[in-house]
Amino acid sequence: MREKNIPPLLAQEEVSQLLNVPSQRLEEAYWKGTIKNYQKHNLEAIQFRKGLGSVEAGTMVIMGEEIEVIRGFPKIRRTLLLKPALEKHFTGGNVAVEEKMNGYNVRIACIDHRIFAFTRGGYVCPYTTRKANEILDLDLFFQENPDMVICGEMVGTLNPYVSHYYPEVGKLGFRIFDLRKKITNTPLTVMDKRELLEEYGLEPVRLLGIFSVKEAPKKILEIVKDLGYKDREGVVMKDPMMQLEPLKYTSSQAQASELEYALSYPFDLARAFLFSRIIREGFQAYEMAETNDELRERALRMGESIIYPMLGTIKKVKEGEIAAEDLVIEVENQEEAEEFIRHLRDLKVMATLVEIKDGKAVIRRIHQSTNDKVNNYLQGGLY
Amino acid sequence: MREKNIPPLLAQEEVSQLLNVPSQRLEEAYWKGTIKNYQKHNLEAIQFRKGLGSVEAGTMVIMGEEIEVIRGFPKIRRTLLLKPALEKHFTGGNVAVEEKMNGYNVRIACIDHRIFAFTRGGYVCPYTTRKANEILDLDLFFQENPDMVICGEMVGTLNPYVSHYYPEVGKLGFRIFDLRKKITNTPLTVMDKRELLEEYGLEPVRLLGIFSVKEAPKKILEIVKDLGYKDREGVVMKDPMMQLEPLKYTSSQAQASELEYALSYPFDLARAFLFSRIIREGFQAYEMAETNDELRERALRMGESIIYPMLGTIKKVKEGEIAAEDLVIEVENQEEAEEFIRHLRDLKVMATLVEIKDGKAVIRRIHQSTNDKVNNYLQGGLY
Repeated sequence: MREKNIPPLLAQEEVSQLLNVPSQRLEEAYWKGTIKNYQKHNLEAIQFRKGLGSVEAGTMVIMGEEIEVIRGFPKIRRTLLLKPALEKHFTGGNVAVEEKMNGYNVRIACIDHRIFAFTRGGYVCPYTTRKANEILDLDLFFQENPDMVICGEMVGTLNPYVSHYYPEVGKLGFRIFDLRKKITNTPLTVMDKRELLEEYGLEPVRLLGIFSVKEAPKKILEIVKDLGYKDREGVVMKDPMMQLEPLKYTSSQAQASELEYALSYPFDLARAFLFSRIIREGFQAYEMAETNDELRERALRMGESIIYPMLGTIKKVKEGEIAAEDLVIEVENQEEAEEFIRHLRDLKVMATLVEIKDGKAVIRRIHQSTNDKVNNYLQGGLY
Repeated sequence: MREKNIPPLLAQEEVSQLLNVPSQRLEEAYWKGTIKNYQKHNLEAIQFRKGLGSVEAGTMVIMGEEIEVIRGFPKIRRTLLLKPALEKHFTGGNVAVEEKMNGYNVRIACIDHRIFAFTRGGYVCPYTTRKANEILDLDLFFQENPDMVICGEMVGTLNPYVSHYYPEVGKLGFRIFDLRKKITNTPLTVMDKRELLEEYGLEPVRLLGIFSVKEAPKKILEIVKDLGYKDREGVVMKDPMMQLEPLKYTSSQAQASELEYALSYPFDLARAFLFSRIIREGFQAYEMAETNDELRERALRMGESIIYPMLGTIKKVKEGEIAAEDLVIEVENQEEAEEFIRHLRDLKVMATLVEIKDGKAVIRRIHQSTNDKVNNYLQGGLY
């Protein structure tokens, strides 16, 4: 291990100062693998695979004209019960409620006049980078706010990570939930963010209301119920001044659709997903104080989102198909598709190119354990 | 560690010969904790906490007038899909189908003219030992068959491990599924077992049929559906000659009732239970080729068995009760109740005596994590 040298970037005293982490701890983290060298897309950088002190996982330290730090997006904790959690947490008295959309978290930043899109882990996603530059007009924003990081959700159906249909988005769209400073990760307040975005014609996530802590739980339960009926995910609740950590809360339908996805590939995904989704449903049912009919509906929704996808996959494998999901992305040529597949492999996702047609690449993500185990049981294997 | 000596029993060459395991391996297993000294109920014994070579977990080697070996009850593997598994497994051509009852596995054996009941792990259960001697007339059987171990299920409502109502049993009953030899664990064939039991008026589990491998899957699916409607657990499928390993298969209702139990104490039990029960349901739904209505019913049953018990526990804890289950056993005096509680503590189960009334002891088993976590969320803790 110790034969390789520390990356030159990591050895710079300035990095230790910018991150407020002693050089020695950085060095140790490098030897442990918490920090990795990252050299792709003409970036020379170091990537935080895990958090280190107050530095979030997903943080990138990049050698540009000057040293740039794009901090990881902070993990948002979840409430199981709104009322007690909001009362305890939002000591400022007010709660701003923004829609939580079902897509993938992206940070967009400008480094030496090039605009990059980073996924949660800090990887530059070539597809998202290209699409962000196509969909959004960011030049003026970054010219005038070069120290800002735009944090938002890439949503829509032509989205290779989490494909979900939103009527107002369609194929692909980007909605912004935070503007944060490079280096420190300091966010703008909820209203400052919205004003600044409006100036540049950039679209924020929907602000669904600002409520007093007293009225918030009831209002939010109504909002989340309503979002659920429309097959939308949920909310993020913020201190309007952004002095406190935001919290999240999601609809029963969001839980069901995550179960549905996980149970489509039970031996790859379900073990990790099941418990937490089910716990959320129990507490939500309690807080929503549902009628017998509503409870029964929730139980049926959960049961169906567990059984049906499993059954679908067993049948598929029985008919000789493989347990896989097809992602569709827009590409201009084969190289763009292949670059994205290489990116997926960096993320340890097994994927192959199926076809390119009409400017769309179909990429197959294989769920190998599900495939192998279902085949085994179909052939009489014992559990 | 090495300061303590090997138990004298373990040092005897005869033990190594009886178990067909080299002395040195036994010694190593003792130092690793796979084998433990067991000195309770006036028995001097060694207990196999885990399997070792071909010696099953739960095996007890007991110093009696001679050295006695009560082998652990072999783990019975599960089929997810009957048809392919039976075809592959039952190469003898026939399958004997016995009812699998929902209670706890007990081995009863006679050691130096005393009759003991061992639980799965090899512990002598004082309650089961007492009850087995009360319920069953075993003296003649063991007088004439001293080398036999009676393997069966203790079932009924006054059963401290798994309380389940069977109309033909009521409070407490014992049904026998295997007769096995001491030392070797060799089982009698299905018919020899039944004949021998009949001679002594001892009750076997129900034999639901002996089928050819070809017809078995269809028959067993029907049987299991029917058992499910009656809230009964499922079946164990055996080679009539007992030359092959038995297999088990359970009803959807059994899965639901296990989920119901686990989700009553979600932070203590659910994580371990959820995945496997859900997988069973998916494969059973596939093999039963259900109509849309039947599928929906299965989904609803599963959803309800997940949501309702969780909701019940949250409400209970909110009202200041603790997350616990009350076990009821018959006792003649306080000492018998306390002896059973000590036995539970040996098994690492936290339990306290609530009351003794009309010959029944109520013992409370506390599910501490559920209690603590539910309280935490009710007070606004974040997930």
